Amino acid sequence: MTARKLDGQALAGLIRGRMAPQAAEFSRRYGRPPGLAIVLVGEHPASELYVRLKLKAGREAGFRADLERLPEGATLGDVLELVEKLNVSPHYDGILVQAPLPEAVGDGAMSRVFDALAPEKDVDGVTPSNVGHLVQGRPTFVPCTPLGILELLSSEGTTLAGQRACVVGRSEIVGKPIALLLLQRDATVTVCHSKTSDLAAACREADILVVAVGRAGLVRRSFVKPGATVIDVGTNTVTDPSIATMLFPEGHPRLSLFRERGSVLVGDVHPEVADVAEALTPVPGGVGPLTIAMLMRNTLRAARARVGADPTTGE
Amino acid sequence: MTARKLDGQALAGLIRGRMAPQAAEFSRRYGRPPGLAIVLVGEHPASELYVRLKLKAGREAGFRADLERLPEGATLGDVLELVEKLNVSPHYDGILVQAPLPEAVGDGAMSRVFDALAPEKDVDGVTPSNVGHLVQGRPTFVPCTPLGILELLSSEGTTLAGQRACVVGRSEIVGKPIALLLLQRDATVTVCHSKTSDLAAACREADILVVAVGRAGLVRRSFVKPGATVIDVGTNTVTDPSIATMLFPEGHPRLSLFRERGSVLVGDVHPEVADVAEALTPVPGGVGPLTIAMLMRNTLRAARARVGADPTTGE
Repeated sequence: MTARKLDGQALAGLIRGRMAPQAAEFSRRYGRPPGLAIVLVGEHPASELYVRLKLKAGREAGFRADLERLPEGATLGDVLELVEKLNVSPHYDGILVQAPLPEAVGDGAMSRVFDALAPEKDVDGVTPSNVGHLVQGRPTFVPCTPLGILELLSSEGTTLAGQRACVVGRSEIVGKPIALLLLQRDATVTVCHSKTSDLAAACREADILVVAVGRAGLVRRSFVKPGATVIDVGTNTVTDPSIATMLFPEGHPRLSLFRERGSVLVGDVHPEVADVAEALTPVPGGVGPLTIAMLMRNTLRAARARVGADPTTGE
Repeated sequence: MTARKLDGQALAGLIRGRMAPQAAEFSRRYGRPPGLAIVLVGEHPASELYVRLKLKAGREAGFRADLERLPEGATLGDVLELVEKLNVSPHYDGILVQAPLPEAVGDGAMSRVFDALAPEKDVDGVTPSNVGHLVQGRPTFVPCTPLGILELLSSEGTTLAGQRACVVGRSEIVGKPIALLLLQRDATVTVCHSKTSDLAAACREADILVVAVGRAGLVRRSFVKPGATVIDVGTNTVTDPSIATMLFPEGHPRLSLFRERGSVLVGDVHPEVADVAEALTPVPGGVGPLTIAMLMRNTLRAARARVGADPTTGE
């Protein structure tokens, strides 16, 4: 058996395609496009790439999508000042502060920045009150990656109610919110992490397994119940040949790619899982593109709410 | 084997005993006692009882503890107006709105009331931003029942890190926050509920089983891993003889009590679980008294924070 590929790229394309005319309609009606500001502090190659993809997707869909950069040496005060400026700017309906901030900004800086974001522009659902609304099952901005995972599962018609779901990883931005969302949809949810004693056993209970830890190939065949749906949120750049050969057999095209380029992008799920899972997201091309599409959707909703229109029109 | 009884009553007594001199010291220093206002709307026999116990415990520990009543016919506007008044009152450091509100107050009323509470007086941790802080692992007011459960487990020296925990029930006030707290303490946490397909199997995985659903005797012997710690949050008043005889064998003193009085207070965990669990909270006398002690502690913390003192002095 080879797992069905859950094509996040294709679904994201469809969603962004539906969004473009809605953004155009918004611009026509309100005399300006829905606006997204992305704050990027310092130099971080992976962040640069993510931000570029977000800006490109936003602009292609007819949004105003602007990058607001601060240098590596920026202080917490600089970041907060920028956020305050964006909070009150008439051009932006959504604000995303790209994580992580440089270490020099200080401990707890991310929390301080989250607290400063205007909840009605918080399109990645990180402010305390938006997180609280999510726990309470109230309408709110949900973080984009978990939202994208739900969208994918729902487009596949995956049953969630009464199913066992296992989430590996407990980050604020993926693990905890996807666990809460799956629980809201009546799955029985287990959250695992680095301190879980028998991770393989806990994962094997799952009909739906979501992995978001950032360790290349952590989840092996023995972790997966035959027939499970596996969502791989990891995006790891492998540069160590011993990891590349642990992941891909000799002759595999991605191993050749690795040897050619010196690096390869892989998920947290070992490719051998395709032999037992019923469905599996690829990396790249799985969850990542959906995260971007959901950022667009949340921004459009924020824009509509700001002008007093129904936020979910046409979705 | 008979499970060790986890004596919440005794622990609550100790905690309240430690609190009394701290409340006295606060009064001496700031010229007023720590103050708690409890809002009770309408007629609800169980709520009357809980509120009475909370007021009594507060007063005995030297707090100002006042009941603010609204009649059964109160509107949402009446409740919000009262909350606003208490938010700005100099006498009160903590406000607790006793759930449930009468149905006539309207759908979503509880959320509207939670939103209106001043977060710094929200001693039961129900405002969205306090809930968000809990998810984000930041200092905040944690709901009193989950806090009491943690206190009990910690006083018993129960290992949480790396253990499997199962929470049955997903309420805002018990299930979700205790799941988040156990996760924060490195347990591997599963949340079950009414839609869980094989509840017994999910419960049987747990080293620590927390049950908070409100169904007398739901959790049977077969649900419990031998040696597990079982926390029973249920408080159910049984008046149906068939349920009483399902719970207690002929000749059991509590069955005699039931026949004498026509009702008996029981938890969600069947008494037969004592044969397999290593430790078990009784009902009554388990989690309930700790909820009240934690309400006192949160109120004292709120009072100290309000006067600019270290909230956790002497704890």
